[in-house]
Amino acid sequence: MPSQHTTVKRHPERGAYDRATIDPILDEALICHLGFVVDGRPFVIPTIHARDGDTLYVHGSPGSRMLRAAKEGVDICVTVTLLDGLVLARSVYNHSMNYRSVVVLGRVREVTDPGEKLRAMQRVVEHVLPGRWKDARQPNDAEIKGTTILALPLDEASAKIRSGPPTDDDADRALPVWAGVIPLGIEPADPVPDSGVGGPPPAYAADYDRLT
Amino acid sequence: MPSQHTTVKRHPERGAYDRATIDPILDEALICHLGFVVDGRPFVIPTIHARDGDTLYVHGSPGSRMLRAAKEGVDICVTVTLLDGLVLARSVYNHSMNYRSVVVLGRVREVTDPGEKLRAMQRVVEHVLPGRWKDARQPNDAEIKGTTILALPLDEASAKIRSGPPTDDDADRALPVWAGVIPLGIEPADPVPDSGVGGPPPAYAADYDRLT
Repeated sequence: MPSQHTTVKRHPERGAYDRATIDPILDEALICHLGFVVDGRPFVIPTIHARDGDTLYVHGSPGSRMLRAAKEGVDICVTVTLLDGLVLARSVYNHSMNYRSVVVLGRVREVTDPGEKLRAMQRVVEHVLPGRWKDARQPNDAEIKGTTILALPLDEASAKIRSGPPTDDDADRALPVWAGVIPLGIEPADPVPDSGVGGPPPAYAADYDRLT
Repeated sequence: MPSQHTTVKRHPERGAYDRATIDPILDEALICHLGFVVDGRPFVIPTIHARDGDTLYVHGSPGSRMLRAAKEGVDICVTVTLLDGLVLARSVYNHSMNYRSVVVLGRVREVTDPGEKLRAMQRVVEHVLPGRWKDARQPNDAEIKGTTILALPLDEASAKIRSGPPTDDDADRALPVWAGVIPLGIEPADPVPDSGVGGPPPAYAADYDRLT
């Protein structure tokens, strides 16, 4: 349900408010941008996130200025954007990008229960790299305590999507200008082992593919 | 020069404040995330930008809520993030990402001079797709008027960079866990022509490469 704040006002035809649209975008995005307010000024920092049902978890470190502010139950905004292509129109004015973005607004809650925190950490790792959690050395109590996880309900969220070819004005369509889309995606390269590591990388690293 | 607000406090060794570090990150990033405050709440939306010397231009549309707020000379935050890789440590706790990000803070100015606005539009197009501006149909007066461009000085900016292999605790390095980096990059696919377009795509589209 779109709220006053999440209603897409510019290009409303690109807006969507159903979780069937929102969730896959959150799940595919590797990073998010977290916005918060300190002394009336906006700050935006990149971090990582993971969805667990109706909750969006955001990872941080207790030392950061942003998280100190955000932990105090303030409003935050988490935005993820997947860039799908460059849209070349015949006119400069109609150039665009194909993208899928989600904006989540709400009052943040710091996760303090060790069980919920550990589960959220697992969700974050598995969100980025499915299969990794069980292979790595698990967090000990000090590490769990030393990790800050914020939780945001997915109550107030919206998606905005542009896809497809350019939309030129009719008067421009006859111009002898090449028009179309350059698709963009994330391309993983071969894993680079750390010093001292023997053996091939696990399949989830060797065959890493961000497509969901 | 780092200000109180741009000083990197978490992992200070990753912070940088020189334009020789900041500018290439701004120039490589295809999109930015723009943060602003409305009624005390933060909002973060994706948009496109371009640097012109000491000024960062941000593109928008006059109808959007964000730009209505931002045009009034308020403080904004523009953040760009380039994701370079997934960092797999032996311990869950030391997993990370390699990235290059820049945060620019400041009071926004709406560009109203048609000449400056046209130049900023050119910078945005050429920032995304060098060579495109001269081929496409140029903006007319109504289109220039219908475009909102915001300007932000690069006075208050910082970069944060993580690169290289995982940094595991010494006690973990002997664990039989594969560790290393999965490099990530943006991969353009073959251009898809719009209906009615004849002839091959121009070289700047066919050979598009985001690496600077």
